[in-house]
Amino acid sequence: MFRQRTSDFFRNLQDEITSSLESLDGGAKFREDLWDRPDGGGGRTRVMTDGNIFEKAGVNFSAVHGESPKMLQDKSNAASQFYATGISLVLHPRSPKIPTVHANFRYFEQSTGEAWFGGGIDLTPYYLVEQDAKHFHTTIKSTCDTHDADYYPRFKQWCDDYFYIKHRAETRGIGGIFFDHLNGNRVELEKIFSFVQDIGRTFLPSYNPIVEEHKDEHFTDAERQWQLLRHGRYVEFNLVYDKGTLFGLETGGRIESILMSLPTLARWDYDVQLQHGSEEEKLVNVLKNPRSWA
Amino acid sequence: MFRQRTSDFFRNLQDEITSSLESLDGGAKFREDLWDRPDGGGGRTRVMTDGNIFEKAGVNFSAVHGESPKMLQDKSNAASQFYATGISLVLHPRSPKIPTVHANFRYFEQSTGEAWFGGGIDLTPYYLVEQDAKHFHTTIKSTCDTHDADYYPRFKQWCDDYFYIKHRAETRGIGGIFFDHLNGNRVELEKIFSFVQDIGRTFLPSYNPIVEEHKDEHFTDAERQWQLLRHGRYVEFNLVYDKGTLFGLETGGRIESILMSLPTLARWDYDVQLQHGSEEEKLVNVLKNPRSWA
Repeated sequence: MFRQRTSDFFRNLQDEITSSLESLDGGAKFREDLWDRPDGGGGRTRVMTDGNIFEKAGVNFSAVHGESPKMLQDKSNAASQFYATGISLVLHPRSPKIPTVHANFRYFEQSTGEAWFGGGIDLTPYYLVEQDAKHFHTTIKSTCDTHDADYYPRFKQWCDDYFYIKHRAETRGIGGIFFDHLNGNRVELEKIFSFVQDIGRTFLPSYNPIVEEHKDEHFTDAERQWQLLRHGRYVEFNLVYDKGTLFGLETGGRIESILMSLPTLARWDYDVQLQHGSEEEKLVNVLKNPRSWA
Repeated sequence: MFRQRTSDFFRNLQDEITSSLESLDGGAKFREDLWDRPDGGGGRTRVMTDGNIFEKAGVNFSAVHGESPKMLQDKSNAASQFYATGISLVLHPRSPKIPTVHANFRYFEQSTGEAWFGGGIDLTPYYLVEQDAKHFHTTIKSTCDTHDADYYPRFKQWCDDYFYIKHRAETRGIGGIFFDHLNGNRVELEKIFSFVQDIGRTFLPSYNPIVEEHKDEHFTDAERQWQLLRHGRYVEFNLVYDKGTLFGLETGGRIESILMSLPTLARWDYDVQLQHGSEEEKLVNVLKNPRSWA
């Protein structure tokens, strides 16, 4: 059954990623929480805290089903059953020299016959290192290009558009790719699944080398405070705009798994002014004017 | 002109409150930012940071006008002009032994003829001190009762309903009063204005004695971390549910003045479990089951 294959893939990907991240961190281990969804299905939440590298890292797998939430029923104008499975991860390193990263891949099916994939990977650095941005985007683009030459340019733009904090007039990070409602007939869906598998496996090679590059770098308290301020923007995006988060809160998802995406610490200072020519300003300039990296 | 009298009152109330809070704090002073709204009117934002008592305290006055935002036009089905004036304050003390407090009073007028007052005062303690809760609610109730015996019970309930964090199944704090769209004919509007003035002047006597009571109390780092966790809930409420905040973000208000309500530091830990019988649990029990305090 197709849905079983998707869910098996996401579950195995979770194993592969958490195992690799434990080796990378070298300190903490993931704690695992198995949970049941009262209305059908459940999940496997894995969270690592206070590691050598990761202050908070969450990698969730879930496969849930039941009656479609009202939000979706209004759209289709019919009561229906849904099935959704996927993996969602957010890694918040303690060092401001290492970027935060988010990835999410999911498969969704409705009893009305609709089925689609969605997902993406995006990077949120605290300081701009062009070489990192290029590595991240190039790695992702290479995988995209083996499937469809249109994927990367289309999904890169979609990512910049999606992760936009309107009231700040800036993006959450330096992007990556984002796609949703990728659907088609049986054959096309197989092709999309093949793409999703490849891009899911591209997560580790797109991110881990950036961690390796910066994990031993020194940082100052001022740099840490800047990271916490940027964490504030991350929280603003997730709570005000992120459709996945709001959908989860609205439909009574498992709160601890949904809000695991939030950083351990965030700060808000009044009317922060950046020093002209500073590294902080350099980052914000790119968030206000997304660039091509690959 | 009625609107001028309302705006004069709110401006003077801001002076009265910031002057009293500077004396209370004894350390920092308010910084004042005057700002213009591109489409009409402006405001006077006052923020105090890193005081003896207040980690972050914002007291805003504004009087703005122009074309009604789309959100309101859809409601009235006609393009119209609006005028809005008010005062909004949020005080975040550094000590977890002193509650955060929020108050807001506003007058709104539309060229279609509608005019109303809204506002409220509510307390967000980190530890429950019943005597404080009683003092706060009783002080507010006394003022309400001199105007209308129905006000306090009605507005107390409204407050518990409004400041509800649905996904956490708990209120933001221990309430106070909340009211909106209080309107009527000319004579009734004068009566409501008289109530709003009295309740606005009740802010200081409802809150300052609680600060005096606890300002010299010792607190531990564990208590401070609990406060930061509760700050996280404050952020969740303001960014996910608070109509004033979302309206401001949506209509392009002055971001720094709107988000001044957020605490300097907030934290999110995964799946926090409270010790049975602890002071932290005692607070959360009241947030899950609001009580009568006056």
